[in-house]
Amino acid sequence: MASPEIEALTQALARLPGLGPRSARRAVLHLLKRRDSALGPLLEALARVNERLVTCGLCGNVDTANPCAVCSDARRDPRLLCVVEEVADLWALDRSRLFPGRFHVLGGRLSALEGVRPEDLSIDRLLARIGGGGIDEVVLAMNATLEGQTTAHYLAERLETLPVRVTQLAHGLPVGGELDYLDEGTLAQALRARRPVS
Amino acid sequence: MASPEIEALTQALARLPGLGPRSARRAVLHLLKRRDSALGPLLEALARVNERLVTCGLCGNVDTANPCAVCSDARRDPRLLCVVEEVADLWALDRSRLFPGRFHVLGGRLSALEGVRPEDLSIDRLLARIGGGGIDEVVLAMNATLEGQTTAHYLAERLETLPVRVTQLAHGLPVGGELDYLDEGTLAQALRARRPVS
Ligand SMILES: [Zn+2]
Ligand SMILES: [Zn+2]
Repeated sequence: MASPEIEALTQALARLPGLGPRSARRAVLHLLKRRDSALGPLLEALARVNERLVTCGLCGNVDTANPCAVCSDARRDPRLLCVVEEVADLWALDRSRLFPGRFHVLGGRLSALEGVRPEDLSIDRLLARIGGGGIDEVVLAMNATLEGQTTAHYLAERLETLPVRVTQLAHGLPVGGELDYLDEGTLAQALRARRPVS
Repeated sequence: MASPEIEALTQALARLPGLGPRSARRAVLHLLKRRDSALGPLLEALARVNERLVTCGLCGNVDTANPCAVCSDARRDPRLLCVVEEVADLWALDRSRLFPGRFHVLGGRLSALEGVRPEDLSIDRLLARIGGGGIDEVVLAMNATLEGQTTAHYLAERLETLPVRVTQLAHGLPVGGELDYLDEGTLAQALRARRPVS
């Protein structure tokens, strides 16, 4: 039988999305056979992430600094705020280098199925941020999924009374598409054609 | 852009079998969103494995002790030795609790394609172990793959002159089947019907 240490590692890996119990066991054996070239680097990378990364108190990004590099970047237009579901979406948009403003990470999307309610997302913090002033336009960059669009709709209503222009990504996004999975061209087009929420 | 720490972790995870760059990124985000419930336990499990696990100098098993728990188990028959390709195969056979002897892990299989030669496997150590005496039967428990059977054939020839009975798992194993993927019943049957190498 494998030792308790190996069982614990197998179970921890099996909980990652994309890995089941079977592939987690394969991954563990891969690591055990390559202590120096695989296990060591993975352990070090995890420890570094665990030690150094913090959640940005302003936007919810994950970075080594708080506020994060995006929020501290003086070249970015503080009047433009892009609201995304997840940190991955912030990175996807930031990789494209097409959005010159700042971000706000909701930490998820409204979902009746998964029991995610408005108070589970950083919506109050978003409203406070906008209420603090200096923001002209809020771009709702939710995924083009049912839940993403429900969230965008909800946010648009909450933002209605605030003195900001609310826009959303143009629906060039493929139906069911998730931001993190799109190529730069599609993202660029959707950003360029962003339009006011009607 | 994601920080260098996150990129390093993504790359380390992407090298695991079963995870590509895309699913590694998802896994990283999963971990970042669950610092306490996922990242912490995974880090701890990896660190424990890294700190505590050693390769058994006798059989090649991976365990917290050297010699390992299997080799130190006085209830096991020292005259029976089962040769397997990988540590995973040892665990698979050991889980079935049907083999009362000890093991020898080759650390792979002969493969022209992957350039694995006899000197890359722990064959010399196997011969020395058998040469040391006290072993009556050597069970070749290679996978029922072309490479596994080539390895078994090669070992059978190397063992020919030694005073041991050489057997192999009965070919109830499905063609192309790998030990680690079989249910206990199939393993039990294959073990029970093991036969001399002709
Ligand atoms: Zn930030
Ligand atoms: Zn051992």
